[in-house]
Amino acid sequence: MEHLYCVIMAGGRGERFWPLSTKNVPKPFVRLFGDRTMIQMTVDRILGLVPLDHIFVVLGGEHEGVARNQLANLGKDQFIVEPAGRDTAACIGLAATLLHRRDPEGVMIVLPADHYIPDTAAFIRTVSRTVEWAMRGDFLVTVGINPTRPDVGYGYIKAGESVTDADRSTCKVDRFVEKPDLEKALQYLSEGIYYWNAGLFVWRIRTLLDGLKRHMGELYRGLEEIDRAMSEGNPETVARVFAGFNKVSIDYGLMEKADNVLMVKADFAWDDVGTWGSLRRVMELDGTGNCRSGRTMCVDTKDCVVYGQDVPVGTVGVENLIIVASPGGVLVCDGGRDQETRQIAKMFDEEGS
Amino acid sequence: MEHLYCVIMAGGRGERFWPLSTKNVPKPFVRLFGDRTMIQMTVDRILGLVPLDHIFVVLGGEHEGVARNQLANLGKDQFIVEPAGRDTAACIGLAATLLHRRDPEGVMIVLPADHYIPDTAAFIRTVSRTVEWAMRGDFLVTVGINPTRPDVGYGYIKAGESVTDADRSTCKVDRFVEKPDLEKALQYLSEGIYYWNAGLFVWRIRTLLDGLKRHMGELYRGLEEIDRAMSEGNPETVARVFAGFNKVSIDYGLMEKADNVLMVKADFAWDDVGTWGSLRRVMELDGTGNCRSGRTMCVDTKDCVVYGQDVPVGTVGVENLIIVASPGGVLVCDGGRDQETRQIAKMFDEEGS
Repeated sequence: MEHLYCVIMAGGRGERFWPLSTKNVPKPFVRLFGDRTMIQMTVDRILGLVPLDHIFVVLGGEHEGVARNQLANLGKDQFIVEPAGRDTAACIGLAATLLHRRDPEGVMIVLPADHYIPDTAAFIRTVSRTVEWAMRGDFLVTVGINPTRPDVGYGYIKAGESVTDADRSTCKVDRFVEKPDLEKALQYLSEGIYYWNAGLFVWRIRTLLDGLKRHMGELYRGLEEIDRAMSEGNPETVARVFAGFNKVSIDYGLMEKADNVLMVKADFAWDDVGTWGSLRRVMELDGTGNCRSGRTMCVDTKDCVVYGQDVPVGTVGVENLIIVASPGGVLVCDGGRDQETRQIAKMFDEEGS
Repeated sequence: MEHLYCVIMAGGRGERFWPLSTKNVPKPFVRLFGDRTMIQMTVDRILGLVPLDHIFVVLGGEHEGVARNQLANLGKDQFIVEPAGRDTAACIGLAATLLHRRDPEGVMIVLPADHYIPDTAAFIRTVSRTVEWAMRGDFLVTVGINPTRPDVGYGYIKAGESVTDADRSTCKVDRFVEKPDLEKALQYLSEGIYYWNAGLFVWRIRTLLDGLKRHMGELYRGLEEIDRAMSEGNPETVARVFAGFNKVSIDYGLMEKADNVLMVKADFAWDDVGTWGSLRRVMELDGTGNCRSGRTMCVDTKDCVVYGQDVPVGTVGVENLIIVASPGGVLVCDGGRDQETRQIAKMFDEEGS
């Protein structure tokens, strides 16, 4: 596996996990589970397959400090700083260009930095199978998660026929589907051939760049220019060209259009833990349905998230609330309205500026 | 007024205002309103009538540090440390014994350290009138607050006839009444001759000691022993005798029994702010009924107390809650159950020990 690399994408604005996450410390750098942050757990998880010095983190310059602090055993050149936020296609393209200069035969695993995957062994099994397929040919390989509920917050992948009769866990992809409405989500769930798109990809770097050349010509030409500028030691050009890229996701720009996409069915539990309320899905609940973390005392409290980081939290006679306390701020939110946390984060951010 | 003294009683266990108040920092030492603590506001308020060096604070030894810190312009001997908590009769008796040694002709104003009285000028007017009556004869003079609602958390005073035809604001006392049930409280309110007992007293020290001698003989004899021990410079005896006192309130032990009690009707607004919820009575509310203090952002929030001390607080879609945040802890409590805050404070206290 000497040609295997992992690229961890650590973007995000951190508004949905306020007050723990902020503009300066977005979700990948927050401790939602125990004493490791999301990105630390992501690195820990992939170490079973990729050696430490083959792991790269793509992130915004404003987060480089906190990232290097949390991942102190990664070298300085393992942090790839995006000159600007330009969505996942440009982000992945930049990482691929850099890795291609180092190893033209490289195979690249792309992982989001902030997802919840409790079973590392199962994760490694699935990713290994994904890597196998990526090495076997010119495939853009992604992972599909078996949906357990009609979630309207995720994108879906409609599975096509199995690639081989021997391995029914890997299939062609019929199509990528944007976040559905509830009716569609229920239909997808019942049909049994739709999978959640977890944003996890594996491909030979050369295969990816070929795909970009074919389906995202403008981005590809920009990456070529960036490659030349790097040879000439010209970081200003790199930054200028990158900043000129359109904001397009890799799903929309490449995966939906390419015809060499495969999907490996995951056999691990997964959650993107996109909001505070999603903690109730993945953490153990107490006897009255509360998801509790930290020093908490709950009297007559039902179906709440009670999360205290470095601050004790007491509750009396409350129900279906999200309560998050940290020295940096406190959130109390109706259980069904955790998306609006962003609004609070923005308001404090604007007030502070 | 060279013989006028003020004794501020700063007891309390601080459980009802957790997390701002704690065992070590009970309510008198907490900033509920703006940047002055309750006891600082109490001192500020009486300064219009009593010079700084005639103000004494009675408190437990565990609170002496915080008290001297907050009242740095009071001398060391102006803090009277109770050897043990023995309720208000013993507390007032000890202060009276000390002051009597200093000035046998002294007149003593007794004030709780943690009540809310926004109109200082009106307060001073009423207390001046109270002092006048205390100086005029052997009276135990108290202040009665005109009730504005059928509160079941306060003791009441049933007013008797006016003392003079000229001054209808001062009357004899028919009787002291313990906290009533709601039916009784409604009756008291409608009858118009019941007043709230604010725990504010004025008397000549000699008159008080005579009252104790007659109605609380055991306490009085103990205070005589304490007086002798002080002459002999024997603090161990002081502590031992004091610790042996029964826990009796001055209301129950003396005021209810004495026949020389007068009541001056207050013309100031008053609240004992006994729980977090009581803040909604005394603080200005925003357009949707919230009582807010500190850095707060409230989205679709109704009838809540939102109190942030040194921590920003964001709320979304909540109603009738008490939310208190400080670096020391966070409370989220149903609006009608703020008495149970004590339970939370106790639980954390036991856990911590």
